[in-house]
Amino acid sequence: MSGFEDLLTPAFSGDRRALAKLLTVVERGGAESRRLLSAVYPHSGKAHVVGVTGPPGAGKSTLVDRLIGRIRSDGAEVAALLVDPSSPFSGGAILGDRIRMQDRVSDAGVYARSMASRGHLGGVSDAAPKAAIVLDAAGFPYVLVETVGVGQAEVDIVESAQTTLVVLNPGWGDSIQAAKAGLLEIGDVFVVNKADRPGVEATVSDLNHMLHDGPEREWTPPVVTTVATTGTGVDELWEAVLSHQQHLAGVDGNAVERRRAERDLRVAMVELLQQRALDRIEESDIDGAVDEVAARRLDPWTAAERLLPG
Amino acid sequence: MSGFEDLLTPAFSGDRRALAKLLTVVERGGAESRRLLSAVYPHSGKAHVVGVTGPPGAGKSTLVDRLIGRIRSDGAEVAALLVDPSSPFSGGAILGDRIRMQDRVSDAGVYARSMASRGHLGGVSDAAPKAAIVLDAAGFPYVLVETVGVGQAEVDIVESAQTTLVVLNPGWGDSIQAAKAGLLEIGDVFVVNKADRPGVEATVSDLNHMLHDGPEREWTPPVVTTVATTGTGVDELWEAVLSHQQHLAGVDGNAVERRRAERDLRVAMVELLQQRALDRIEESDIDGAVDEVAARRLDPWTAAERLLPG
Repeated sequence: MSGFEDLLTPAFSGDRRALAKLLTVVERGGAESRRLLSAVYPHSGKAHVVGVTGPPGAGKSTLVDRLIGRIRSDGAEVAALLVDPSSPFSGGAILGDRIRMQDRVSDAGVYARSMASRGHLGGVSDAAPKAAIVLDAAGFPYVLVETVGVGQAEVDIVESAQTTLVVLNPGWGDSIQAAKAGLLEIGDVFVVNKADRPGVEATVSDLNHMLHDGPEREWTPPVVTTVATTGTGVDELWEAVLSHQQHLAGVDGNAVERRRAERDLRVAMVELLQQRALDRIEESDIDGAVDEVAARRLDPWTAAERLLPG
Repeated sequence: MSGFEDLLTPAFSGDRRALAKLLTVVERGGAESRRLLSAVYPHSGKAHVVGVTGPPGAGKSTLVDRLIGRIRSDGAEVAALLVDPSSPFSGGAILGDRIRMQDRVSDAGVYARSMASRGHLGGVSDAAPKAAIVLDAAGFPYVLVETVGVGQAEVDIVESAQTTLVVLNPGWGDSIQAAKAGLLEIGDVFVVNKADRPGVEATVSDLNHMLHDGPEREWTPPVVTTVATTGTGVDELWEAVLSHQQHLAGVDGNAVERRRAERDLRVAMVELLQQRALDRIEESDIDGAVDEVAARRLDPWTAAERLLPG
């Protein structure tokens, strides 16, 4: 297998097959992925990454599709990452609402890709933030990252986005559920989608109330209503994203860039340490320890300490 | 501060204040928590831990409350851990449906506790599986662990449970959303709660279809319907849990115990490595590296490698 180096120039010049191969390298992880990211990182930092999160069924996929259309109507190129929980049970074959995306494939200004949300060892994958770096370096001015629910992977994606959209529905657990799920503090823009359903005013007002209730912030997240299936409100939503982008540009640029660097470095350190941990776990004699722990002659913390000294 | 050692005997003899203090030690994490877990681990392994998961708003809290009542009606003691996403924005003060739990406080056979779901460094907390070990060692025959949504913390909790209940609602995103969220492969028993709403037959039949569609398994998860607010179906649900408990007892005991030991050891190894990683990150000169990364003169992966050599 030849390296990724030959793919960089074509991928950055619009060759989608080369780009897809680069993203596969990132998805596979490991040393090759790190070398690739080291190579492309200096070219990144120009894209506006928009995270789209919220509970399953809120209509995120349809909304992402509409936003792609909106961005394309301005002539800008756009990439979309769809973080699909790959189900070992279903073989990850539940792609119903992905198919719609394929309509865009004929548009050379759009690049869309599904990514697995599960990583090695059953842990969550952190490939999406890295894939966003590659798409950024490849020159896309906008990168949309859709993610299901809120878990650690989603937090990582949110942290790698400049603007995070939280998509809810009217009456969705009386919006208190959004607060319980930790969605209030991660959103830069809130979207009440399916706004043709009853209860939309109450949900908007609840959200506004809760968003104004917390500590004062430099940016107060607006609440936008949409009907993604018809496209209603998508223009207003995109205006809200652009307002947030302008807000960030107005904040001290060095501070924003430093915060981004801190985040990237933290992701890289954690990954490196995880990789080393995996290597060490693979090298250790785990079977004997498991037998001792199973017999409760030894507790797992002491066993771990012995397997992985100092 | 005196150590936890003086708390062990009272906590294991029914002193709830002492037990609460032990759980606080576990929640704080660190070396003291590991010493505590090493001490109690040999006494654990007898409880049946039941994980209760599903999307926000599905009615998990009410169902847990009903299950507590059902278990108490048999005279058995029961502990419940409620993994509440503590919101830095709201100050974690959204406890609306926790208040109900307080009704049980007057019952000495019940111990209920909310736990933060966020750990240090913004990562998810793995305190709940450890708290379950303490409650197990303290002699509770049943430990219920309620968790919101599906993320890494939830996967850990599910892995530490002997029986996992997945709680859905009629028509909840046409149950395809359950599959997308990775809920199908983690459930031992599926609960369609709010079964007085329309669409319940379709959801049950969709679930049964999907559950029988996958690779054949030793245990085919039953689908139970409940109306937690009225208590309808809770007896049938508890029967299903007991059936699964009997199923596990019938499976080769050594294999089950070995699997549990592997899981505990893996959790302990990961924790130990995380702790060491944190120590090393704190000791490293991160500021200079961040500046280099911010200027894009250095990529974060190379910076991490330099900060944390081999």
